[in-house]
Amino acid sequence: MKIVIIGGDAAGMSAASKIKRTRPEFEVTVFEKSEDVSYSACGMPYNIADPGRKIEDLVVREATAFREKQGIRLLTGHRVEQIDPSGKRISGVTSTGDRFEEPYDNLVIATGGSSIVPDLPGFDRKGVLALKSLDDGRKLKSYIASQGVRKAVIIGMGYIGLEMCEALVERGIHVSMVKPNLGLLPWMDETLSKEVANELVSHGVSLYSGHAVRRIEEREGELTVVCDDLSLDADMVLPAMGIRPNSGIAGDAGIALGAGSAISVDRFLRTSDPHIYAAGDCADSYHVVTGKKTWIPLALRANRSGWAVADNLCGEPSEIPGVAGTAVFKVFHLEVARTGIMEKEALKEGFEPVSVTIESRSRAHAHPGSSVIRVHMTGDKLSGRLLGVQMVGREGCAHRINAAAVALHAKMSVQSFSEADLAYAPPFGPVWDPMLTAANQLLKKMAG
Amino acid sequence: MKIVIIGGDAAGMSAASKIKRTRPEFEVTVFEKSEDVSYSACGMPYNIADPGRKIEDLVVREATAFREKQGIRLLTGHRVEQIDPSGKRISGVTSTGDRFEEPYDNLVIATGGSSIVPDLPGFDRKGVLALKSLDDGRKLKSYIASQGVRKAVIIGMGYIGLEMCEALVERGIHVSMVKPNLGLLPWMDETLSKEVANELVSHGVSLYSGHAVRRIEEREGELTVVCDDLSLDADMVLPAMGIRPNSGIAGDAGIALGAGSAISVDRFLRTSDPHIYAAGDCADSYHVVTGKKTWIPLALRANRSGWAVADNLCGEPSEIPGVAGTAVFKVFHLEVARTGIMEKEALKEGFEPVSVTIESRSRAHAHPGSSVIRVHMTGDKLSGRLLGVQMVGREGCAHRINAAAVALHAKMSVQSFSEADLAYAPPFGPVWDPMLTAANQLLKKMAG
Repeated sequence: MKIVIIGGDAAGMSAASKIKRTRPEFEVTVFEKSEDVSYSACGMPYNIADPGRKIEDLVVREATAFREKQGIRLLTGHRVEQIDPSGKRISGVTSTGDRFEEPYDNLVIATGGSSIVPDLPGFDRKGVLALKSLDDGRKLKSYIASQGVRKAVIIGMGYIGLEMCEALVERGIHVSMVKPNLGLLPWMDETLSKEVANELVSHGVSLYSGHAVRRIEEREGELTVVCDDLSLDADMVLPAMGIRPNSGIAGDAGIALGAGSAISVDRFLRTSDPHIYAAGDCADSYHVVTGKKTWIPLALRANRSGWAVADNLCGEPSEIPGVAGTAVFKVFHLEVARTGIMEKEALKEGFEPVSVTIESRSRAHAHPGSSVIRVHMTGDKLSGRLLGVQMVGREGCAHRINAAAVALHAKMSVQSFSEADLAYAPPFGPVWDPMLTAANQLLKKMAG
Repeated sequence: MKIVIIGGDAAGMSAASKIKRTRPEFEVTVFEKSEDVSYSACGMPYNIADPGRKIEDLVVREATAFREKQGIRLLTGHRVEQIDPSGKRISGVTSTGDRFEEPYDNLVIATGGSSIVPDLPGFDRKGVLALKSLDDGRKLKSYIASQGVRKAVIIGMGYIGLEMCEALVERGIHVSMVKPNLGLLPWMDETLSKEVANELVSHGVSLYSGHAVRRIEEREGELTVVCDDLSLDADMVLPAMGIRPNSGIAGDAGIALGAGSAISVDRFLRTSDPHIYAAGDCADSYHVVTGKKTWIPLALRANRSGWAVADNLCGEPSEIPGVAGTAVFKVFHLEVARTGIMEKEALKEGFEPVSVTIESRSRAHAHPGSSVIRVHMTGDKLSGRLLGVQMVGREGCAHRINAAAVALHAKMSVQSFSEADLAYAPPFGPVWDPMLTAANQLLKKMAG
């Protein structure tokens, strides 16, 4: 069996490793366009925050280990440009300009995603640095050091933008954040969103929402981000406007695309071609709340789908149930967590969403060091089902959200969730966990 | 409607408050034997640790507020001694020696639990101080201050013993802990248990397990805890051998007792008498894993069952599903959490338990500040169900356990739990949450 994998990060290398563990006799070839494989992309903001750490600390496993210890034929600097499904072969070009091609029995597309960089004037200037690959991180880190960056503009206010904002502030850089729509994170409840905005502002970050960027100008080495009614000077500009799936070569080969223009896969990670699987950020998934296709590119899904593809290729059929949309990130001293769908999305899906926002504490009554936890919870009035939860606080949000995520997988009602026997001890929360308080309040509102 | 409630702590006052909120016209009388109502008993160790805080900080709501703002007839210093179910009345004696009696239409027993103090010589000596009520805490705290306690012996190694151990060490007191059986917590996996023991020892605590205490002697004001082959000197001795339900007056009145000799209640908190409910630590409950009766006295259950009794008395039938056995506590820098049933109990219940113990990290690869998290997970080979989880680590255990607790409520399989979309960001865990790693390993072992 000859298996070709396009892409050598989380999904691709997870698949390659598991295939070789299960079926050492299979020939596994991985083509990776960069020189970096198997690294923690999510760790980049934290690495960039610390000038004393090398970006290579984020490499989880060296290319040589995959080659020598696991027997994976791993070819870096190999960009695959074309898939020929009828001829069952791929072709491409190396970083030194040589053409290559390779036949396969089964193909795994694990091409990941790319930063969205808009087609506007000036986004190709020196000092405009998007962050996606380890090499992006390498360039960004060396740019900060070599150019003595003092002020930066981040375009976008998503997870990566917010994490990079904290990283740059840690480096003593003044950060301005700008984006076209009002508010911070579009899915976030207003009260919670304001708390995150306050946290940013209290760390000296300037927020400009409601300003569409038109172009980036440069004068005497200084960049200016130009909006209609606003201009922001910067030594460095970070476009953090989200990512898009690298599904181009799949689409060109006639493979069906799905949610968010990602490669459409079923629960077994099969594409529309019987000999081609897709895994990781380039592929879509099912949402456990709606049952419909969605595209939520996150690390756990990438690793998990890589493993599932490996099982399927090794003759151990493995179906994965989809995603709940669970995510967490840190912004300075705040933990921000979410799972499920929010009111706007719920309405579109035909639910009758009801939401509450409650305020609770991170520790018990009279326990020192307690801080505010805010929970926003949404349920469906028609079915009684729990639909989604968001949480913001200084402690105790990151792992708490997992209880709600499990409840979504189990398609639990708000009632059942409110009855859960959750842990209590004074250093860790009130007797009624903040999520239970939210569920109790939501039940009342749903009954009203 | 005339409702009498025996006991003015978590369950009793939760019930009283909710009844008056829903049906202000109901006459609600609460008899409390002590002078303290509605306080955070679980907060006592943390309060005792800090000589600068008054024990009264733990009072959540003053008696006067219940009386004046909520219209509850709250009688403190009133010990109920007898229930007459056929005459529908209770009787007792006040702290000043006066007899009282009171008729009821419906009665709620919320008498809580008491510390187990063995019937052995010397347990009545001055300086032998069990901790259960706020008044116990008051006495203990004042004893430490007035007697200049330098060394203490704690008999027992349960939650309260461990929390009090930390509190006393914080006060600069040397602590020895002693108990008859080997090991630390009997339900805990050996690897995890050893980690907790190491944490205690590294804070200067002396552990003596496998030594049954025979008596407490006193010579010139110094106490000696005497075992067969061991004697421990102390200025203060804390019996922390667990608690038992205060179900005596219920039993005397012919009300059926259930698990752990607690008052037997159904899912509506009804006792064997149609006009008597029981709630809180004095009553038993159903275990969501076994479906059978159990007695696990914890604060959330007490509050929740108080509310449910109120709803039932107010004509809004409220059934509560039982407990998962979720608990968490802190021992110095460790978080110790559990939910569900463990291998020994599972065997008794007819499951075919399989367990794994795994080691993971509290933060992502290469993220600074990461520490070890150990997870012990048990599943049923016959049904595939998740049965229980234990976790020990320096961070990230207390709230993580809730995801497993929700999974137990949903009667999830280990397979389904392993497929959950849990949160990931580098400061909060590895891509594969420690619980998912445990579930993945357990699945392999269950299949083997």
